[in-house]
Amino acid sequence: MERWDPDARRTYAIVGTGAVGGYYGALLQRAGHAVHFLLRSDVEHVRRHGLVVESKNGDFALPHVNAYSRPAEMPACDVVVVALKTTQNALLGQLLPPLLKDDGVVLTLQNGLGPEEEAAAVVGPGRVLGGLCFLCSNKVGPGHIRHLDYGKITLGEYVADPTAPPAGITPRLRAVAGDLYRAGVEVEPAEDLLAARWRKLVWNVPFNGLSVLLDATTDELVRDPHSLAVVERLMQEVAGGSAAFGRPIPEEFLRRMLAMTRAMAPYRTSMKIDYDERRPMEVEAIFGSPVRAARQAGFDPVLMAGLYQGLSFLDARRRRPIPTSE
Amino acid sequence: MERWDPDARRTYAIVGTGAVGGYYGALLQRAGHAVHFLLRSDVEHVRRHGLVVESKNGDFALPHVNAYSRPAEMPACDVVVVALKTTQNALLGQLLPPLLKDDGVVLTLQNGLGPEEEAAAVVGPGRVLGGLCFLCSNKVGPGHIRHLDYGKITLGEYVADPTAPPAGITPRLRAVAGDLYRAGVEVEPAEDLLAARWRKLVWNVPFNGLSVLLDATTDELVRDPHSLAVVERLMQEVAGGSAAFGRPIPEEFLRRMLAMTRAMAPYRTSMKIDYDERRPMEVEAIFGSPVRAARQAGFDPVLMAGLYQGLSFLDARRRRPIPTSE
Repeated sequence: MERWDPDARRTYAIVGTGAVGGYYGALLQRAGHAVHFLLRSDVEHVRRHGLVVESKNGDFALPHVNAYSRPAEMPACDVVVVALKTTQNALLGQLLPPLLKDDGVVLTLQNGLGPEEEAAAVVGPGRVLGGLCFLCSNKVGPGHIRHLDYGKITLGEYVADPTAPPAGITPRLRAVAGDLYRAGVEVEPAEDLLAARWRKLVWNVPFNGLSVLLDATTDELVRDPHSLAVVERLMQEVAGGSAAFGRPIPEEFLRRMLAMTRAMAPYRTSMKIDYDERRPMEVEAIFGSPVRAARQAGFDPVLMAGLYQGLSFLDARRRRPIPTSE
Repeated sequence: MERWDPDARRTYAIVGTGAVGGYYGALLQRAGHAVHFLLRSDVEHVRRHGLVVESKNGDFALPHVNAYSRPAEMPACDVVVVALKTTQNALLGQLLPPLLKDDGVVLTLQNGLGPEEEAAAVVGPGRVLGGLCFLCSNKVGPGHIRHLDYGKITLGEYVADPTAPPAGITPRLRAVAGDLYRAGVEVEPAEDLLAARWRKLVWNVPFNGLSVLLDATTDELVRDPHSLAVVERLMQEVAGGSAAFGRPIPEEFLRRMLAMTRAMAPYRTSMKIDYDERRPMEVEAIFGSPVRAARQAGFDPVLMAGLYQGLSFLDARRRRPIPTSE
């Protein structure tokens, strides 16, 4: 049977078994796929006890999983899922080559703009799919994932040249989407990955950025007229960047994002959680890459660039060692 | 003798006897002028004990001062010095009319752009001088001022129409400057008050704003390359606003401000102190007015406007009552 035949059994490697990779990987294994998990700190625990997923769609446990601490121990797979934080992407050069079959594909489940480019720099541009996750999930202990809400993945083919036509829905894209769908994931195949990435930034740029800079939850940011003005301006700048790549975003889409945010429960963004927990923030993926991309395409997103620099300042300062009294 | 004759004895009213008004008012009284101080919380203390000034130029005490709690009790004066925070300017309509002689003048010693306009709205446009203070001073107790450093005042005639030629050095400007100079204040008479106000914003906008938003001292802001980029961009936007009013600021001036800041000891800005002490910040004077003015003159300072909105958000939130557990 051909590798990308809908009914073929594909093998999956999960690079980064955290809130994202652990959740989707566990669903794929539960659906009958051979899944190989790369872990760090909790590899021994997972070897012994497997994975536990608490989910609003139903809790389940996988007592036996293939857990590894080094890529060299793992078999090459059909699909290599990159579910690291983008701040760890410098590791991709070591991690990916041993894991990918010659005609396999990398699927990046990462934030911001540019993760596919970083994977493609390692494995080649014709071998990358990008996925945008709308997922609310946490890793709450060793091998223990708590899925709180949502879970949809928007999935598209990566095209290195942003001026080239989008790749549309390829057989391998349809195959991976089908695997995820049958595993219980809501999947939206996208004709144009770049357009999807810019649209996601319409929300991520203002709310991730301002939640950190203003120490605020999403509901505060849309309720106060001052912060709302900044949110709207940032959304317009993201739309300007997208338009510079021939992907205009209608004003109506921005209004819908605002309305959705107003309807949401008060939410602490993932970047704010990273900041509060003193973890590196995904400043480059969510801010640096889009700012640079927009400028290269001839559009200068002034406020977004300022936000980028401000967050970079905070990120650098927070990562310095904390002075101790000893 | 004519009122603005250099050797005439002028009477002074000090509206707002804090770190600024208390300091300059005490110097004027020590130099022999009749000075009338308007106070709030510490009026009884000052009536009994007078004012104490600790200064790097020499400590002194004024055991007897004219201290008032209401303008109606005060005599009309030749010069009415407004040394309130700009956040209290809504009070000017009540405070100024009883204090100003018919041919007297108001001198605003306030921050940002627009304080003269607010005074002129009360007393008329031909009766206002503006002063920019470069002063490091605190009120440390009732009637007790601690002058730490600097003290220079740049002094100019207010001209309501920004497209009209500057008023130059008038006799009354020279007279007030002379009084201050003989009282021991370094004074710089300015031909063009509006140009001086914009130049002062070159420092005040980036450092006051970012010190609050990034919780940073001035030395951190010029040392980190990310925050430095934002500082430079904001300086350029202030220069753009100034240029839109026909007052271009040379690049060299911006570089000098940066060099001066690098040479300064680590400094917590006045806006940061206000924020940390949960006092209202001078957001409108330092940010709102210049942003609106620049836009009216056809220049859109995008990053400055974003900073303005962010600070407005923080200011509004901090002024809300603190929830208590009782």
